[in-house]
Amino acid sequence: MNRKTVPFSYQFEETMRQLGSDGLLLAATKPSGGSNLMTIGWGALGLVWGLPTFVVLVRPSRFTYEFIEAAGEFTVNVPTPAMSDMVLFCGSQSGRDVDKIARFGLRVSRGHTVQSVTLDACPLVYECRVVQKNDILPGSLDAGILARFYPGGDFHRAYYGEILGTFAADPE
Amino acid sequence: MNRKTVPFSYQFEETMRQLGSDGLLLAATKPSGGSNLMTIGWGALGLVWGLPTFVVLVRPSRFTYEFIEAAGEFTVNVPTPAMSDMVLFCGSQSGRDVDKIARFGLRVSRGHTVQSVTLDACPLVYECRVVQKNDILPGSLDAGILARFYPGGDFHRAYYGEILGTFAADPE
Repeated sequence: MNRKTVPFSYQFEETMRQLGSDGLLLAATKPSGGSNLMTIGWGALGLVWGLPTFVVLVRPSRFTYEFIEAAGEFTVNVPTPAMSDMVLFCGSQSGRDVDKIARFGLRVSRGHTVQSVTLDACPLVYECRVVQKNDILPGSLDAGILARFYPGGDFHRAYYGEILGTFAADPE
Repeated sequence: MNRKTVPFSYQFEETMRQLGSDGLLLAATKPSGGSNLMTIGWGALGLVWGLPTFVVLVRPSRFTYEFIEAAGEFTVNVPTPAMSDMVLFCGSQSGRDVDKIARFGLRVSRGHTVQSVTLDACPLVYECRVVQKNDILPGSLDAGILARFYPGGDFHRAYYGEILGTFAADPE
């Protein structure tokens, strides 16, 4: 997959628009080889410890959680609006029940800077190395958020991912 | 101060450029009335719990920490490059020793959505309500980051701020 390196802030508005509509695709590959992806609607981009950083949140119950824990890395893939059906499917089905990559015949490539896969069809990908893990704490959480999102616990783990590279599809 | 509401993703690249150079100005006002500001070089912007969110990190030793803890809110103010001297000063001096707002004769306004002040000279401000507090954990922190930034502990507290409003200076 031919891609060019871009700044992590590249097309942020489009990334946020997609995050807030269908979602982005979070992927991770275990050292033993298996890959999984899930749809995420939450995340934050910025600079932490002087490093470009993508913070993603994953519940421990999610299949992807095992993959990120084992891999210590992940990729965030920004789909196009045309990929909506696949993205919504990946947000509603667990990788425990279906191999989402095979199901949709998705072409993937090893990351440039990580072992985890990236999705060829996504025009923008962030490759990240986990540098901090931090669980959402009920004791200091807004009461409305606590009631709405955590009636059964399963508090998200926030992964601070150092962005090792941001890559855009090269139209050349 | 006349400002217009803009999306939280407005001028993200410029916000990140400023964050990574001189820094942004984090301000908070205690319910009892006092305000303080500090310069931050780290932060992340995105969507969490379906809410526009600004994550900022503050060490417990910082004077501003007391203000955010008391206020439960903060503002992030994006300065212009021309404000460089003031921004650098605010990053090197503690509000315990000098009233930075008075020192530079900064004009401030109460936020539109929070009680904390915003800086009139800053063309873009984010007004945030704290919805989660989460301390950086040494046990799951990258060893290089741990050694470089925390030889004396004083681990940052990450404040997840729901962005209640993003406001840009209105040139009209």
